[in-house]
Amino acid sequence: MRKASFADMQCSIAQALEIVGEWWTLLIVRDAFLGVRRFDDFVDRLGISRNVLAARLDKLVAAGVLERRPYDSGRGRYDYVLTDKGRALWPVMTTLRQWGDEWIVGRGNEPIQLEHRGCGHTTTAHLVCDACGEVLEARSVRAVPGPGATPDSMPRLRDGQRSTTASPGAGAG
Amino acid sequence: MRKASFADMQCSIAQALEIVGEWWTLLIVRDAFLGVRRFDDFVDRLGISRNVLAARLDKLVAAGVLERRPYDSGRGRYDYVLTDKGRALWPVMTTLRQWGDEWIVGRGNEPIQLEHRGCGHTTTAHLVCDACGEVLEARSVRAVPGPGATPDSMPRLRDGQRSTTASPGAGAG
Repeated sequence: MRKASFADMQCSIAQALEIVGEWWTLLIVRDAFLGVRRFDDFVDRLGISRNVLAARLDKLVAAGVLERRPYDSGRGRYDYVLTDKGRALWPVMTTLRQWGDEWIVGRGNEPIQLEHRGCGHTTTAHLVCDACGEVLEARSVRAVPGPGATPDSMPRLRDGQRSTTASPGAGAG
Repeated sequence: MRKASFADMQCSIAQALEIVGEWWTLLIVRDAFLGVRRFDDFVDRLGISRNVLAARLDKLVAAGVLERRPYDSGRGRYDYVLTDKGRALWPVMTTLRQWGDEWIVGRGNEPIQLEHRGCGHTTTAHLVCDACGEVLEARSVRAVPGPGATPDSMPRLRDGQRSTTASPGAGAG
């Protein structure tokens, strides 16, 4: 499994997975959202080996997802805190958690829920179109080549095939 | 890195990563959304070895994310098609792609964009509260224990720490 091929792929999902595609990486980010900042606290929460954790934290710092903030500079100790780029992963964490809630853990067994400060309700986040505000799902959109598209960005579909987020020329869903 | 520990974790994100936490797995799901169904087409698109692909497809079928549909039953050949559980991953794919677009690939270089059939515009999906319709971000919610919470679901924070999606008692953000 060659990692290098992901960085080379002209696909924003592959590029994102190059940074956050490892299990531990996303669980570290999850715990950072929940307020964990200290190396030893990540170890306790995740049951991860110290050397694996150190490697993942280094990678997240190098990628600009976490930043180190000294809390005991005399001893070279740091908190690990989400950057703007890291906080921007919140929709990914939220949709992944909701999928796990609905399809694996099951409704009524959610370990964590979100309360919306604005309205005070327990909230389930829905995706809506930023242009018209309607709720979006796979079948309400179609994938089209973007400004950075290459010939490999979209698959060439066989006759009779169509995409779920249908591509142009593949027939409307 | 012990996989078993993920299935044991009382966390919907960990449970979800147990199924879709491998790079290849999410890229297979991405291509399934784009209409790829045939084993050989996945090989061509992903540059993945046939034995790794076979193992990942088996896992996705066992997990109920993809289903096999015979297209040449005499020769035991199958299409791989998203199930309802698989299509429910669309918000995860979309938010992950948008993060890669914004923070790695860069705006103006998007390989793929989504067109909303309803309004005809190129769309960026936003998360909104299902109770009040307001746009959600990390700081507008706080994590609270759900009905399936265990003592480990939420971290015990140190004095002065608070979460980005702040937990109860950790101080409002």
